[in-house]
Amino acid sequence: MNWKLILIVCLLGVVSCEDSTTAGGDTTTIEATNSSSKLLLSDDGIADFKSSNSDVVKNTLKELSQSVDVILTAPIEIPQPVDAGGGYSHEKHKQNYAELYKVALSQSLDPQEDKLTYIRNMFDGYANMYPTLGMHPKDKENHPGGKLYWQGLNEAVTLFYMIQSYDLTRGYLTEDERLKIEKDLLRPMAKFLSEDSYEVFNKIHNHGTWSVAAVGMTGMVLGDDDMVQRSIYGSNKDGKTGFIAQLDHLFSSDGFYSEGPYYHRYAILPFIAFAQAIENNEPEVKIFEHRDGILRKAVTTLLQLTDEQGRFYPINDAIKSKTWESDEVVFATNIAYKQYKDASLLPVIKMMNKISYTDAGVIAANAITDDTEDFYNRPSMFIADGVEGKSGGLALMRSPQNTSGQLQAVLKFSTQGMGHGHFDRLSLSVYDYGNEIMPDYGAARFLNIETKRGGRYLPENKTYAQHTIAHGAVVLDEKSQYKGNVKYSEEHVSHAVKTDMSGERLQVSIAADSTAYNGTNLSRSITMINEPEISNRPFLIDLYHIDSKTSHQMDLNYPFFGDIIDTQFDYSRPVNKTVLGKDNGYNHLEVLAQGSPKSNATNTQFSFLQAQRFYSITSVTDASTQLFITQTGANDPEFNINLQRQYLIRQPKNKTSHTFASVIEPHGFFDPVKETVTYPKSVISNLKHEQQDGYDIVTFNAGGAMYLYTLSRKRDNNKNHTIEYNGKSYSWDGTHQLIKL
Amino acid sequence: MNWKLILIVCLLGVVSCEDSTTAGGDTTTIEATNSSSKLLLSDDGIADFKSSNSDVVKNTLKELSQSVDVILTAPIEIPQPVDAGGGYSHEKHKQNYAELYKVALSQSLDPQEDKLTYIRNMFDGYANMYPTLGMHPKDKENHPGGKLYWQGLNEAVTLFYMIQSYDLTRGYLTEDERLKIEKDLLRPMAKFLSEDSYEVFNKIHNHGTWSVAAVGMTGMVLGDDDMVQRSIYGSNKDGKTGFIAQLDHLFSSDGFYSEGPYYHRYAILPFIAFAQAIENNEPEVKIFEHRDGILRKAVTTLLQLTDEQGRFYPINDAIKSKTWESDEVVFATNIAYKQYKDASLLPVIKMMNKISYTDAGVIAANAITDDTEDFYNRPSMFIADGVEGKSGGLALMRSPQNTSGQLQAVLKFSTQGMGHGHFDRLSLSVYDYGNEIMPDYGAARFLNIETKRGGRYLPENKTYAQHTIAHGAVVLDEKSQYKGNVKYSEEHVSHAVKTDMSGERLQVSIAADSTAYNGTNLSRSITMINEPEISNRPFLIDLYHIDSKTSHQMDLNYPFFGDIIDTQFDYSRPVNKTVLGKDNGYNHLEVLAQGSPKSNATNTQFSFLQAQRFYSITSVTDASTQLFITQTGANDPEFNINLQRQYLIRQPKNKTSHTFASVIEPHGFFDPVKETVTYPKSVISNLKHEQQDGYDIVTFNAGGAMYLYTLSRKRDNNKNHTIEYNGKSYSWDGTHQLIKL
Repeated sequence: MNWKLILIVCLLGVVSCEDSTTAGGDTTTIEATNSSSKLLLSDDGIADFKSSNSDVVKNTLKELSQSVDVILTAPIEIPQPVDAGGGYSHEKHKQNYAELYKVALSQSLDPQEDKLTYIRNMFDGYANMYPTLGMHPKDKENHPGGKLYWQGLNEAVTLFYMIQSYDLTRGYLTEDERLKIEKDLLRPMAKFLSEDSYEVFNKIHNHGTWSVAAVGMTGMVLGDDDMVQRSIYGSNKDGKTGFIAQLDHLFSSDGFYSEGPYYHRYAILPFIAFAQAIENNEPEVKIFEHRDGILRKAVTTLLQLTDEQGRFYPINDAIKSKTWESDEVVFATNIAYKQYKDASLLPVIKMMNKISYTDAGVIAANAITDDTEDFYNRPSMFIADGVEGKSGGLALMRSPQNTSGQLQAVLKFSTQGMGHGHFDRLSLSVYDYGNEIMPDYGAARFLNIETKRGGRYLPENKTYAQHTIAHGAVVLDEKSQYKGNVKYSEEHVSHAVKTDMSGERLQVSIAADSTAYNGTNLSRSITMINEPEISNRPFLIDLYHIDSKTSHQMDLNYPFFGDIIDTQFDYSRPVNKTVLGKDNGYNHLEVLAQGSPKSNATNTQFSFLQAQRFYSITSVTDASTQLFITQTGANDPEFNINLQRQYLIRQPKNKTSHTFASVIEPHGFFDPVKETVTYPKSVISNLKHEQQDGYDIVTFNAGGAMYLYTLSRKRDNNKNHTIEYNGKSYSWDGTHQLIKL
Repeated sequence: MNWKLILIVCLLGVVSCEDSTTAGGDTTTIEATNSSSKLLLSDDGIADFKSSNSDVVKNTLKELSQSVDVILTAPIEIPQPVDAGGGYSHEKHKQNYAELYKVALSQSLDPQEDKLTYIRNMFDGYANMYPTLGMHPKDKENHPGGKLYWQGLNEAVTLFYMIQSYDLTRGYLTEDERLKIEKDLLRPMAKFLSEDSYEVFNKIHNHGTWSVAAVGMTGMVLGDDDMVQRSIYGSNKDGKTGFIAQLDHLFSSDGFYSEGPYYHRYAILPFIAFAQAIENNEPEVKIFEHRDGILRKAVTTLLQLTDEQGRFYPINDAIKSKTWESDEVVFATNIAYKQYKDASLLPVIKMMNKISYTDAGVIAANAITDDTEDFYNRPSMFIADGVEGKSGGLALMRSPQNTSGQLQAVLKFSTQGMGHGHFDRLSLSVYDYGNEIMPDYGAARFLNIETKRGGRYLPENKTYAQHTIAHGAVVLDEKSQYKGNVKYSEEHVSHAVKTDMSGERLQVSIAADSTAYNGTNLSRSITMINEPEISNRPFLIDLYHIDSKTSHQMDLNYPFFGDIIDTQFDYSRPVNKTVLGKDNGYNHLEVLAQGSPKSNATNTQFSFLQAQRFYSITSVTDASTQLFITQTGANDPEFNINLQRQYLIRQPKNKTSHTFASVIEPHGFFDPVKETVTYPKSVISNLKHEQQDGYDIVTFNAGGAMYLYTLSRKRDNNKNHTIEYNGKSYSWDGTHQLIKL
């Protein structure tokens, strides 16, 4: 900033003048006009960064300064775009915008000639190249392509960062430089994204959101209101497409993003960043109040969709190990805090221990105190899917506690999630102590690893990972739900029958589906029981009902991680290689063992040891039940599928209806340092299940005592009810109860 | 203590009287005579515990007090001994002595009636039961049995803790109580261990050490010098057996324990504890000076045998995940610090963040300051095996650095390690960033998990884990080394040809063996190269020579953890189940893929991704080379073998000599949070190997440049040498050199 501008700004009272005087320093090439930031880091924010006493702010600035020092030592290279994801030119262009953004941030915080030279040369290099580019040579049919990259998505992300970099630094550039950058780079990119790639720009999809955010922010900085309006309300400015429409349709009423947390995490950045830009430039839109504060829900729902280590539940197409420490989430959480002042976000921001270089980042950091907890509360909750909240959802059942060691069960019955969805309605995954116990496989993809088909989705994503059998779900007749047809699945939804998670002792979710298999009603209830008298750990009762017009082979699959330590059933291991089935993902599973319940037994038990803890699955079985232990790896010529084992309970094709009744029980610990074992055995035995008048009646023995658990399958069966068991009557209010007999 | 004793002690100046006055408090039943501690926690130590300002001391005391509070709430149960390891009675007796020890410690630090009652009742209960016991019902043939436990070892450990508990608390017991405990429990246990179990007591084996330590300490406390002398010098008091003989024969000259770190860690406790007791009671033995301070070497060598997370290298029969945080190591490190004042131990003690309840514990804690580092230096080193240091050993090659991210290669050519040894001479395992990259399988055992055959070693330990093929080693003709005969292997040793690890840029170890296979000389050299010009990470050159009188099939096996991400060779995956071989562990490996080098290729490359980092093995191969990817799990009816994959390079039976030449190269990182990939590709190509005049000549291309690496296979080839390569001469001093051509 030059003195004239500073004077004006001071007179207007916009920024704190004490600190602003240091900005600019002795760089003298700055034009005064139109150089104040339009986007996310304002002069106020810069002043706040400089004056903050927060350690995280200081560390953030130090880190930026160190990383910029490294960036400035290397020559700028702007390669001809030739490679797909993971290849040199692809990664280099990504690196360039990320580094440009860092240098631009650094320049705005501490202007220096060498940074300015870097910025000038980088912009100039791209402005020279961009007009010469046609479509990228690795551009694929059926996938929107770019010029700098094989896919247009990366192009939008690049503009997203370039326009922010330009916003922060154009005040230091000459008019000629600005003209060239705007004319040869920024406007052509915005045109490519919004006009040449019209379809993506107007798509209700995260690729569309990146496009509208990048183009909209470009419009704000260049003062092009037409660009801004097209971004917010769609190319036709009718609100049918564009940012608001995306906000309305991509998030459920509870802020759930149907592709799942992996894409939610990615999409949240353009949503929240563009929203902040709109708030700054078009405050009359009241974007943060839109749809009852949907952006707040989008952020908190995303944060809640994590295990104890802050890793996102890998539902649908997901790369595992992605945590809330991703820059996108840091960014989103900062802005959500700034706008909504939701104190529940502060522990997360504290644990992240880093902030975005935005006004919101420094505001969030300054709000953290010694009293801010190091623990994020993850209560049980139902997250509704669908714009109206009526299209199924996720039941997150989590043991009530405020220390580590939470048992988490995820019952998934959300909508398909478009092309990135999996056919896993009513599937269950389980996490304990931050470890995957009964995992969701996630995606078959080695992101950005070029040797694995350019880092793209692998064929096995469609042939295995998306199929029902890759999940903790029931499969009928070895066919995936909805016959594996995305379009058909997108048209139908499952339903929450009941979600009652308020109790400390009993939490219940019931989900139902009537469209995944023709003529078949499916319903699954998961009950989490916290009853220290029974077990020192919470445990789950899993009841899965199939009720069909015709008879089916019914497979209940429990993927698990860990070593098999006990099998209370008879099995043999096939001598010859045996694959579980022909297609629908069954073709990728090798049968390690095939068995049947012990003679005259009514229960089957399977125990495994994962991350030094014991887990047992106790199931009601009968003489016709078949049991399998399977492992991924069959028909996988390129070793694309990760190692994964499954325990599968099969009822052969002789019934039209059946209930799979199981108890899933964490118990005990092997301490490898002390070499001690506690509670290595399941406490559950004699598990029985029957139905009576719309009620499930489950009984089991635990520690010598018999327990009776009853659950109404209906939503509103809350009145006083009596059931008969073993010749006695038991009565209670409400839909479910656990009684010691 | 009563006042009379305190007065005497004060007059003698033995303890600090300020603090001693609080000991005893208002408990009035204490006899004065003979009640001062003979063993590891003296009145001085108690005073030091109470006066220390160290946080770790305070936390240790707080933890003790909290855990004793819990112990005292539960009733004492002393079950009839019936169960094997992992079973109730087994675990309960273990729990009892551990809890008795804690309460006794607590009583000596803060005497209370309820603790005394607990101690009295626990001792009384065991004194009532012990004389009634015969041998344990689960006593096994060929394994020394106990009375309280299925094996005598646990009995010795029990007395080890009971005598320490008694030592600390007998001053609070009546003479009658003491008489009964000594006559019915302590002396009978000592008699059982030293006389009824004469063989174990006089064995040069860790079970013997536990016995002599327990019995010797009992002798010290009961004032039975005969017991003490038998423990120190063997039943015949001739020094041929007993503690000193064990100290002389169980540790190599470098303090290596041939069974490996897992048993070393276990054995170190009776060694160090009994040594401290001898130092206190028989100082003229000068036990800590014995054999040039062998106990100091035993402790530091144990600590050095760890990966970056402090986990012991799982060589020989080992349970993984065991760290230096084990109580035994805490104990040993404390006493070693007290006796030797070796400051290099302090960072470890600081990182352990806990101490033993001994005089040594509080001395160690008080020695830690803010300046004590949080980093344990693990330099490269050769650890010689054998009493004279001439029986092979371990070469630990570790990249030079003082931050995290160390590459560690372990070349093992130590002695067999008795019954717990593996047939893995010249085997290699690799660790990087604290992760297992090329692992040692360890033992086939689920310790203390009763459903896994009572927690004992599983049959697969002998049929798989101990075999050569389970290791990163060469196997000839699908037979294990020494034909899998322990006795035969025990009689022969391998040799260190050369270990030069002083350089930053090049570190070399060469090991040789001429007895593992009849008429065959084996030699393996591992070179660690740190040359930033070539690669930003250190890497390994692995040269394995086989030179035999007859021709053999030669298999070089590289076990690995991680996902296969690239294979630069042709392979097919067998349609039918294919097991690698019939026996010697080959019968447990399923062939996942079988292949051969690419047509006309002279190199084969295999890349995998483990813990988000990339690793490539580039090997010289020829048209006859066969390649396999194998996986454990064949012929494993009880799922006893952990999942493990191997990359195997086979030269078919057509040569009498061969050199396997490979580069093992860590490179790159996939950041799952940022979703960025760096250095995903190996930089090595065109790897060649030839021999010239006793020198290995290795050339390779890296980053466009050719490098020449030469290494003399002889120990003393240090003079100026010239080799011809590509028509040019290259000269240098020394046995090895890396030159950029």
